[in-house]
Amino acid sequence: MSQPLTESILATDFYQITMAQVYYRLGIHERPALFDHFFRRYPEYGGHQAGYCINAGLEPFVEWMRSVRFEPEHIELLRHMEGRTGRRLFQEDFLRWLERHGSFDALTLWAIPEGRVVHPMVPLTTVQGPLAVAQILETPLLNQLNYATLVATKAARVRYSANSSLVLEFGLRRAQDRGGHAGARAALIGGADFTSNVAASFAQGLPPKGTHAHSLVQVAMALGLGELGAFEAYAESYPDDTILLVDTIDTLESGIPNAIKVFEKLRARGHKPVGIRLDSGDLAYLSIQAARMLDAAGFEETIIVLSSELDELVIWQILTQIRQEAPRYGVDPDRLIKRLTFGVGTRLITSWGHPALGGVYKLVAIQEGEEWVPAIKISESPIKTPNPGKKKVWRLYDARGKATADVLGLEHEELAHEEQIILRHPFEPTKWRLLNRREVEIEPLQHVVLDQGRLVYDFPPLEEVRQQCRRDVERLDPGVLRLVNPHIYHVSLTPALWNLKKALIQEARGRPGTGDGR
Amino acid sequence: MSQPLTESILATDFYQITMAQVYYRLGIHERPALFDHFFRRYPEYGGHQAGYCINAGLEPFVEWMRSVRFEPEHIELLRHMEGRTGRRLFQEDFLRWLERHGSFDALTLWAIPEGRVVHPMVPLTTVQGPLAVAQILETPLLNQLNYATLVATKAARVRYSANSSLVLEFGLRRAQDRGGHAGARAALIGGADFTSNVAASFAQGLPPKGTHAHSLVQVAMALGLGELGAFEAYAESYPDDTILLVDTIDTLESGIPNAIKVFEKLRARGHKPVGIRLDSGDLAYLSIQAARMLDAAGFEETIIVLSSELDELVIWQILTQIRQEAPRYGVDPDRLIKRLTFGVGTRLITSWGHPALGGVYKLVAIQEGEEWVPAIKISESPIKTPNPGKKKVWRLYDARGKATADVLGLEHEELAHEEQIILRHPFEPTKWRLLNRREVEIEPLQHVVLDQGRLVYDFPPLEEVRQQCRRDVERLDPGVLRLVNPHIYHVSLTPALWNLKKALIQEARGRPGTGDGR
Repeated sequence: MSQPLTESILATDFYQITMAQVYYRLGIHERPALFDHFFRRYPEYGGHQAGYCINAGLEPFVEWMRSVRFEPEHIELLRHMEGRTGRRLFQEDFLRWLERHGSFDALTLWAIPEGRVVHPMVPLTTVQGPLAVAQILETPLLNQLNYATLVATKAARVRYSANSSLVLEFGLRRAQDRGGHAGARAALIGGADFTSNVAASFAQGLPPKGTHAHSLVQVAMALGLGELGAFEAYAESYPDDTILLVDTIDTLESGIPNAIKVFEKLRARGHKPVGIRLDSGDLAYLSIQAARMLDAAGFEETIIVLSSELDELVIWQILTQIRQEAPRYGVDPDRLIKRLTFGVGTRLITSWGHPALGGVYKLVAIQEGEEWVPAIKISESPIKTPNPGKKKVWRLYDARGKATADVLGLEHEELAHEEQIILRHPFEPTKWRLLNRREVEIEPLQHVVLDQGRLVYDFPPLEEVRQQCRRDVERLDPGVLRLVNPHIYHVSLTPALWNLKKALIQEARGRPGTGDGR
Repeated sequence: MSQPLTESILATDFYQITMAQVYYRLGIHERPALFDHFFRRYPEYGGHQAGYCINAGLEPFVEWMRSVRFEPEHIELLRHMEGRTGRRLFQEDFLRWLERHGSFDALTLWAIPEGRVVHPMVPLTTVQGPLAVAQILETPLLNQLNYATLVATKAARVRYSANSSLVLEFGLRRAQDRGGHAGARAALIGGADFTSNVAASFAQGLPPKGTHAHSLVQVAMALGLGELGAFEAYAESYPDDTILLVDTIDTLESGIPNAIKVFEKLRARGHKPVGIRLDSGDLAYLSIQAARMLDAAGFEETIIVLSSELDELVIWQILTQIRQEAPRYGVDPDRLIKRLTFGVGTRLITSWGHPALGGVYKLVAIQEGEEWVPAIKISESPIKTPNPGKKKVWRLYDARGKATADVLGLEHEELAHEEQIILRHPFEPTKWRLLNRREVEIEPLQHVVLDQGRLVYDFPPLEEVRQQCRRDVERLDPGVLRLVNPHIYHVSLTPALWNLKKALIQEARGRPGTGDGR
């Protein structure tokens, strides 16, 4: 095989391929179709809902799209598939077509760039092209983009909570197998400064980061060298990069005193010790005591790395407690907070509390002759009815320069030409808002990435994506940034799109042959 | 590069490599060391704790271990790493050693086979071999085995809840990127009958399964063919395998009536329609109504596939509601339940509610001369103190043939030779239990898989692993199987192991040079 199956175009759901054959049989497999990828709700981490998401995953996804196609060995696997009566499931004519045209080379793809703040119901990605292959793309697109956006979002929340402290991504051991690498990359986009994942770091051209594990101390203890021996050995190997994990035996009674002994030797030899790591216990209390002890020994510059089941709320709580309690021990809380680094593992890489973004990929239009016919799906709650047709997406900024709404409109609309911008709620008919054109800045959000398979977009380097993310977060209202009970950011429709949606719903409900005509 | 970085030996945490250099500098990098892999607590899905886990992930992990090593290009990446002062982090002598010996070819690995029921504190995997490479293995081992065991466990719960109904794994689109493939395999081990993931299915030699998506109906509607047209086209392509998704417009008013029309045509042509799928709304109510309508049309044999945010508790609730309400509508609940199939996506592949198993990999002994010196780590709560030394693991079955305890003992112990078996609680000194040897069946749980890198274990085919899983689950007490508030299964220590642990803790607390001597 040219690539492992799990990296191939077969990394999709089976029904995509069975549907492709139905489209082939109907003669509409090459009919241009339009699919929107969007999510309906922000993640809710056990009750505290996010106020925004960070878009991520696009570059590796597009790279994957361009690297796969139905290879002869895939066709052979499908050729041997049988239905319940032993009859072949896939006919030869369809398989021949699939072998010839089964790639994503004919697709056009628009997307909101990585690192951008994004909101529900807004098309993050729009795919246009032959129905059958656009359909097959659904599963890998959702698989790769849902997760990256989920983790970038969680990382942005951790970054918000950690403020200017360094954040390290530590989660590979608790990730979903190979998913941990995409997770590390997404964490770097959303707010982690570095990751301990060596492969993911090198892939992004960043140095991996880390300290050492308890096992180093355990080995030294078992061999009679003691914790001090372990620390000395580490400092010997990394005299200018010494961070010591101090909680293997007893943090305050053994770990920190031993670390200070080693730091003193390093100092005597002209090296600058970097810091310590605390990985268990009451991290707020222990970091205050650690700071006190390190300060007393003249190591005011050393950092304190905290880890152990951290997330944005735990970090928030630790910082709050430090602000309250540090003065009692003669420790300046602001100085202490400045020397903290957060190692965030399980809860970042798994988006603990909300481990999947419910992103979907919905048909919104299909071409009939020269015209795009908008598509609708109505059977559920209003929030589950996608916005039909070929659309544009704009972000509006208010006079303060803060983002105030994302607006979806129809392809031919130009928001900039209006005097007054009318923003309609996506499904509640009584809710709308008026904005004066001259008081808002308008930014189109989607860019064309693939033009019939040809890459026409320059993926910015990771560092630019991260800066974009920071800029976007800064342009959010503080109420939207809140970790708990954030303001709800407005995602609105233009009146034209609103009217189209309403008309299609009514038509579908009343269309003959689809039910009882109600 | 010979393989992508994310598939290489660099798929590890950075500190494993920095520690390896410290071991090298101490001259103990090739010292035989012993690491245990185990988890401390069952997953707790938002309050309802599991009573058991299903071990999974071993075969692909061992395959990975045997396929990687430090390649020259990896060494080159490490060679260029610099510390804070611009000094090289890794010295040439260490890198030369790593290039020559940096593989898992010297490791011996014992493991509990895949598909076995497993419990906290029991070593699922034990790794013995040169300290430096055994250390580097920590992260990939946890990355691959934690997640597989997590999902196999969730799948076993779904299987328990779904009873004899077919369970399909549908989660690729909500998985962590490439992690979805390992998740699908684990789901197949724990209780899913099939998966919609084409790549994962073919990799396991199973046919992938699926129905169709809403988009098929939407396309047909947009092109004026209507829902009925979509169903007819599907049935035309798959006359013996027709399962129709009936909720795009209105399940009861449109979807099911249209499906019945198509089923009637299929029947007239001598085909047997397979069934329908419900993907939204009140699944219990809708499946009763669907059964009523299908029965009235003479399609009593068709199946009803349910999907949409299912997990073990939702399935339980649906079945309970069907039992209560179906008779009111003249539907036999048992017959209805027998025709159900469950498509389980997001909540299985992410282990919703508890998205990471907290498995750890701890040094338990290191060789000194000819002797194994047990290692200890004490700084935290008793449950976090690993059981030291080289150990054996047995499962005891009572007179009913039900598993009654897992027992950890020392290497030289033979449980079968005792008259009375004393089972001590792993950390509470006042808790123990006595068993009469003649009344219990004793089964050793670990098998040797790698003998100094040589594969000495025949991995059974997936079907055997699944049977093993079913047999193990059947040998659990019904109280342990409960989805909510299960009995706590006993994991015990032999008195010899208990005494060793106690002595080591006391020694570590009192060892000079590790603190203040308390």
